[in-house]
Amino acid sequence: MASQPEFGKIVVFGTGLIGGSFALALKEADAVEEVVGFGRTPATLKAAQELLVIDRAGINPAHEIGDADIVLVATPVAQMPEIFSRIAPYLGPDTIVTDGGSTKGDVVAAARAAFGDKIGQFVPAHPIAGAENSGPAAAHGNLYRGKKVVVTPLPENSDEVLDRVKRAWALCGADIYELSPEMHDRVFAAVSHLPHLLSFALVHDLAVRDDADLFFTFAASGFRDFTRIAASHPEMWRDISLANRAALLGELDSYRRQLDDLRDALAAADGSRLEEVFGIARRARREWDGSARREGGGL
Amino acid sequence: MASQPEFGKIVVFGTGLIGGSFALALKEADAVEEVVGFGRTPATLKAAQELLVIDRAGINPAHEIGDADIVLVATPVAQMPEIFSRIAPYLGPDTIVTDGGSTKGDVVAAARAAFGDKIGQFVPAHPIAGAENSGPAAAHGNLYRGKKVVVTPLPENSDEVLDRVKRAWALCGADIYELSPEMHDRVFAAVSHLPHLLSFALVHDLAVRDDADLFFTFAASGFRDFTRIAASHPEMWRDISLANRAALLGELDSYRRQLDDLRDALAAADGSRLEEVFGIARRARREWDGSARREGGGL
Repeated sequence: MASQPEFGKIVVFGTGLIGGSFALALKEADAVEEVVGFGRTPATLKAAQELLVIDRAGINPAHEIGDADIVLVATPVAQMPEIFSRIAPYLGPDTIVTDGGSTKGDVVAAARAAFGDKIGQFVPAHPIAGAENSGPAAAHGNLYRGKKVVVTPLPENSDEVLDRVKRAWALCGADIYELSPEMHDRVFAAVSHLPHLLSFALVHDLAVRDDADLFFTFAASGFRDFTRIAASHPEMWRDISLANRAALLGELDSYRRQLDDLRDALAAADGSRLEEVFGIARRARREWDGSARREGGGL
Repeated sequence: MASQPEFGKIVVFGTGLIGGSFALALKEADAVEEVVGFGRTPATLKAAQELLVIDRAGINPAHEIGDADIVLVATPVAQMPEIFSRIAPYLGPDTIVTDGGSTKGDVVAAARAAFGDKIGQFVPAHPIAGAENSGPAAAHGNLYRGKKVVVTPLPENSDEVLDRVKRAWALCGADIYELSPEMHDRVFAAVSHLPHLLSFALVHDLAVRDDADLFFTFAASGFRDFTRIAASHPEMWRDISLANRAALLGELDSYRRQLDDLRDALAAADGSRLEEVFGIARRARREWDGSARREGGGL
């Protein structure tokens, strides 16, 4: 006798890498009865259905949300406020909404505005998974295996609601972490958003010079590593920078103070201070590299 | 009848990766009669001799410099002033001195102080070759094949003297570039020294926090690339930073202005300015990557 799947209906908004892989992972775990997808174009939804990422395409949220167990909003963050507003009137008493956005403060604010006193039914989350490819064809059921998913609970979330979302991600094979939305945004500003901004800034500073070619001629492997992320998508990083503006400004200001300190040491020819800063950085970088490799993450 | 080698005696101070590979490359090109090595320890010189990197170890510069065609000083930059002073009294009329230091302004100043009115016999140079390994065992005759060597002529260098140094590097298989010492230092401050300083600064800024572990836990592949050079040697980068202090301060200040501009755009939520900067950087980075790969350099 087959046991009942843990989840009945799952609705995903965005059937690409993030949403599609979530759907496929739950299907492969026999943990869901039905997956309904919403997307921006009929062609994407048709592809998602043909690839068995979703069971069927949704037409009208009014008919799909009320009896859904989990609604995952896995679109670009900028589209979330409108989607939240579209689904808010139809939330059933047991419907849980979660998201896959890479910033949390702005998503939580949009969710509060849309869901009002039903905000307890919304559990913000951020699955940390690569994004080299996109669309339903990029989705696969193993994407989240051994990857980190950060859940950022709200004070209004009950333990039961929170556990359901964590359980769904655990069924996808992910390692679950909890941070406050504010701490999440600070951490990712520091370790991801700021490095992107710093790398873009260096290349831009060279590129706008009259003799830019001369500089690029002698750039070598250190420059290559440092600036690899400066080849990232400008629109995407504009949106992330704006979405996480407050935390990113905080981290940028902390970094600028660090540069001021190094400038002072350099101007004073204070070799021992330079060596101290470089030495602390080197030890931390090597320790991180060792531990990140051991746990198989961050590679 | 074997033809006469182009160079008679070559003297190298420092028989490791840079100096040893120069010696081996000229030997393999049958371009030198004899290579004499000076080094910091008898053990290193013995190893260099056993590996056929040098023909014999020098004992006293007074006996070796006067009849040398080329003296290559390939030690850390900090040791060069003393070596220049030791050899200056013995320069013959046709002895040419060159160096392998990665900064040029400070080396030229030390050379001027030591060589006085013989400064025309000194041709500053910077071979751009990796430094993962060191010592005579790391030396090999192919190190410079297809690599860049930047020669930074002085006004006092005659064409003949300059051509001899360029010819020696060409025999090693290198591609020769000419820059002024000042421009050399600006270029390498911008594309190498500054990125190291910026990468050290980011890791240090995180490492000194009470909750550093939390930040490192969520660092991923972008952080890995950006901070790879923060695992470099603190003492070496302290010395490079101090040796190239003036140019590095100039580049650091240019970069800080760039960050100030980005901070203003972020604070004003000026998405179009952010996208413009990111877009210019991305195009330049991708163009550089394409051209650097085509010429097989910088990898």
